[in-house]
Parts: sequence; structure tokens; C-alpha cells
Amino acid sequence: MKKIINEPADVVTESLRGLAAAHADILRVQEDPAVVVRADAPVAGKVAVISGGGSGHEPLHGGFVGLGMLDAAVPGAVFTSPTPDAVQAAIRATTGEAGALLIVKNYTGDVLNFETAGELAAAEDLDVRSVVIDDDVAVADSTFTAGRRGVGGTVLLEKITGAAAERGDSLDAVEALARKVIGQVRSIGVALTAPTVPHVGEPSFALGPGEIEFGIGIHGEPGRERIPAEPADALVARLVQAVVEDLPFERGDRVLLFTNSMGATPLVELYLAHGIAERLLADRGIMVERRLVGPYITSLEMQGMSLTLLRLDDELTELWDAPVNTAALRWKA
Amino acid sequence: MKKIINEPADVVTESLRGLAAAHADILRVQEDPAVVVRADAPVAGKVAVISGGGSGHEPLHGGFVGLGMLDAAVPGAVFTSPTPDAVQAAIRATTGEAGALLIVKNYTGDVLNFETAGELAAAEDLDVRSVVIDDDVAVADSTFTAGRRGVGGTVLLEKITGAAAERGDSLDAVEALARKVIGQVRSIGVALTAPTVPHVGEPSFALGPGEIEFGIGIHGEPGRERIPAEPADALVARLVQAVVEDLPFERGDRVLLFTNSMGATPLVELYLAHGIAERLLADRGIMVERRLVGPYITSLEMQGMSLTLLRLDDELTELWDAPVNTAALRWKA
Repeated sequence: MKKIINEPADVVTESLRGLAAAHADILRVQEDPAVVVRADAPVAGKVAVISGGGSGHEPLHGGFVGLGMLDAAVPGAVFTSPTPDAVQAAIRATTGEAGALLIVKNYTGDVLNFETAGELAAAEDLDVRSVVIDDDVAVADSTFTAGRRGVGGTVLLEKITGAAAERGDSLDAVEALARKVIGQVRSIGVALTAPTVPHVGEPSFALGPGEIEFGIGIHGEPGRERIPAEPADALVARLVQAVVEDLPFERGDRVLLFTNSMGATPLVELYLAHGIAERLLADRGIMVERRLVGPYITSLEMQGMSLTLLRLDDELTELWDAPVNTAALRWKA
Repeated sequence: MKKIINEPADVVTESLRGLAAAHADILRVQEDPAVVVRADAPVAGKVAVISGGGSGHEPLHGGFVGLGMLDAAVPGAVFTSPTPDAVQAAIRATTGEAGALLIVKNYTGDVLNFETAGELAAAEDLDVRSVVIDDDVAVADSTFTAGRRGVGGTVLLEKITGAAAERGDSLDAVEALARKVIGQVRSIGVALTAPTVPHVGEPSFALGPGEIEFGIGIHGEPGRERIPAEPADALVARLVQAVVEDLPFERGDRVLLFTNSMGATPLVELYLAHGIAERLLADRGIMVERRLVGPYITSLEMQGMSLTLLRLDDELTELWDAPVNTAALRWKA
């Protein structure tokens, strides 16, 4: 294992210090327990939008804290759920009378720990709701999950609910919107190589030189099948087919296409794959109206990519386009 | 070699199609020869700022085409200089009476081909000037270079000269500004692993499991020395020392600190390294006033990082902060 780290146990804490130093205008970091909080939190009268999960998927979630997206992110150790007290600290730092929405990726540890934190918040008379995202079409159950896993759709969900909270929507409205997004978004990924968790020191799995893992999870969990490596045209067609036929997305649908690098796949390859996906969707009569291309939900230094499709309507498009100011996503209307 | 590509010879063309599809609001792509051009080019009365070089360093340069940065980028094949006729096509697509500035990284092929293109432009009565950036302190000469190589400082140079051109500065002024930036910026990099060029199919060099290459170039050219892997604290101290003592940067200097991933180094490590660099610079009395952290000048899927320091004054700070709207950098004032 070669990494730019000191002690494996200190990776997340030291990384958060660098994040805080780089983006003091956008966020602050509380240590012990570790929480990334919007610089101007709590924002009076606003629903807080909070997410979190194991580290190693950066910029998810800390890179999405800021105006128009998350009020707080709760980073666990690498590939490890954050503890309930850390989630509770994030709620306390951001949540007022308007309440909070917790966005939880569907992994058993995350679901349990966010649920416990929600109960602690209720005991403090805070109105805290949760939604669980499970957009990965690859497998029905997985190593760390009962039901489908939460993956790339999380980025889109955080952006859209964050925009709704920012414009002043009520907790009822933000929660309903989140459930709507979860119903309209689907993803799938592929790995060419394995990630290495710092405190483990070895790759999470072994792939032969000509093998790829189709339907990979973001922690290296097994996917649908291990298949021979194939040209990008065939591979992207396989990804597009899996996602489109699941919801299904249909001729005439308007969509956001999110082409994500799992970490080590370079942009020159990612844009190549994105171009193929755009063409294949056009062939199916599906209209790509918004795009996101880049490494936004990663798995350490894993080579690979994922595709996420979100069915758009006017409301979701408007919320996607709304201003955002975070370390990883930044634009004005 | 496992990559998400079709034929190695088609990688750049296919990738540019994806770039064009993803960012039609910002840029367009001309094929044969390949040029990435700002969507609203030519901009009347404005100095054109043009750069380019081998592909494989994305988002450099195509990801920096747009308002407030580059008018055009000229992508060669992977790790290969663009041809003079491609540079000429970029000049023709963007340059009017205000003239153009070519930003050339110091590699022999790039310097020659941009020079030839400049001569062709002069024959068409266009006022085209060139600057050569050579900010890498690692080695005096290198595999593809007489003199120092051009690396991370290029990103900052493109942003700052692009902002000056956008506000209406003359070609004389933009050229003088570019020379000023080149005089105030220094970089160094380190590799933990090697990149693999698609048409070669094998890693560019071999590093042992406990070895790193200090002073690496962005094409895997040898650096200063091959040393044992070391903890991040020691490694970042080595990078900071090399950069600071070269210019030198001194107590009381105001700087922009650019912490760059060479591709496969994950953000969790990059922010960790950034935090260490901030602390070491503070210890030296050097004031970090602006930051850029992320993969902005890469070497395919190489693991590693670089540090770039730019000495700031009020003018450079104002130009850095000026609005930019490109695929890879985007903010408003």
C-alpha cells in the first residue's frame, strides 16, 4: 500500500483539517465527534439537510456542505458508518424549529445509527425525519445491505433537497421531494481495480488482469458478475441498459445523466464514456437535459465508473439549476 | 492495461465528443484538427488566450476553456504535442484585432509547434505572442525538455491571464502579466505509481512497492531521486521545502497554495496533504490567502500529488477571484 497518509487511524481527522483550512469561507469542522458544518449554520428558519456515511467516498459528503446543499456532513472512519453521537452533534449544530432531513444511504450500519440519532433528537423535541436512498440497481441485497445500496443518486438527492430547503420549503415539502427523487433515480457501477482501505493495507478484492466487476458497490462489495474487460462501447451499453430498463426510463423522458468516476479513472476516459452514454440515450429517445461528469462519489483509488439517471420534471430541473456553493459543486443561477 | 476506451488511437477524439456533449453551454469542439473553443468565440475586441499540449492531463487544458480563462485549448494525442496546424486552427477560431497570447508549457515539442503556429499567424497579420512556463523546480533539464518543465503553475497562469483578457486588457498588458506570473510561481510533484499511456499499454516506469519518485514530471519523466515511501508529514515537508527555497518564498509573503492530485490520489489523502502544507507554510510565516485543491493537472491514472505556490499581490488576487465559467473551474465574484 502506498498512500499519502501518516497513521491509518488518523486519516479522516487529518483530512478534515485540510478541508477546513481550504474552505473556511464555506464550512467549519468540529472534531470529536467529527462533523462538517456549513460556515453560517444554524441558518434561522431553514430546514437542515444532513447526510453522512463512511469516509473514502470524497467529495461525498463533506464536499457538498454549503449554501444550497448540505447543512452538515457526518464522516465515519473509512468505509465505516458514523456513530449516533456524531449524527446527533450534526443535528444539534444545524437544526432549529424548522427541523431536519437526514439523507441516509442504504447500508445497515448507516440506517441503524442515523435512526438512533433521530430518536435522540426527538427526545430533545426536534423534528427530524429520515429518507433512505437505494438507487443501485446492481443487486437485491449486498455485503453491508438489506435491499439495494445507496450510491450515485445520493449526490443528486443532496443537491435537489438542499435547494428546496434553501428556498424555504417546509420539512414536509423537503421530505416529500426527497421521496420523489428517490423514486426517479437509478444507478449502476463497474470496477476495473480494487480500492485499498488504509487500516487494512491490502486491496479489498482481487481482479485478474482481463477482468472487471460489473455492478460494483462503493466499498468494493461484489456486483452482479465478474466479466472479461470489454471496449468502452460495449461496457457503457451494458451500464446504460441496466439503468434504463430498471425504472424503466422511456422514450420521451427528460433526464439528468451523471457520469461518475470511482476515483482513479481519468477524465479523458470518463468523458469518453459520457459521450457514448449520451449517444445511446439519444438512440432510445431519452432526452439528456442536464449533466454532471466527474469524480463525485468515489471509492478511494478504485478505477471504475458509475452511471446515474434521474428523471426530470420542471421542478427538479429548477432545483438542480439553483445556486450552490460547496467545495465540490459551485454555480449560480 | 485496463481502461474505459475503445481503440487507443481514438481516445482523444472520442473523449472530446463527450466533453462537447457535457458542456455545450461553455465550449464547442472542432475535429480534424482537434481544438476546444469557447462557445461564444471569437469574442470581439478581446485578446484571445490559448493553450494546449498533450492529452492525458485533464482537466488541463480543455476543462479550462470558457469565460474568464481560455478561448481555446489544443489537445494533442496522449502525452504528445499538438501539431502546428491544430494550434493555427485554434488561433483562427478565436483571434481578431486584439491578438492572442499562447501559453506554452516548456516541453521541446510544444515550444516548437506553438512557435511555428505563431509564425503562420504572423503571416496572416495576426498579432500573436507566446509565453513559456517552466515552474517545475525538480530538475534543470528533463526527458522532453531543455530547461525546467511547465507543470501546475500553468493552471494559475491560465486563470489569471484569462481574467485580464476578459476585463479588456491589451495584448501588451496580458503578455506582461503572464511573464510576471511565471516569475512568481514554483511547483514540485511526487509519484507513488506510474501512468499507463493507452497506445503503449504498459506503465511508463516501474516503482518498487516501497518506493516513490520525488520530483516527477507530468509524463512520468524521472524526477530528482527515487526514495523510500515516507509518512505524509515528511513527504509534504520535502515538497514544501523544495518549492519555498527555490524562488525563494519568504516570511511575510502572501501566496496561493495549489495542492494538486496527479490523478489517482483520492481527495481524502489530498486534503490531508493540503492541511500539512498549510501548517508548514504558517510555520515559515508565509500567508496562504487563496487555495486550490483537487485534480487539475494530472497524469492519467498516476497516484501522486504536486504543490504549487504563487506569490500574490493585490492585482493577482483580484484576477484570481474574478469570475470564471469553465468545465473544471467555476465561480462568480
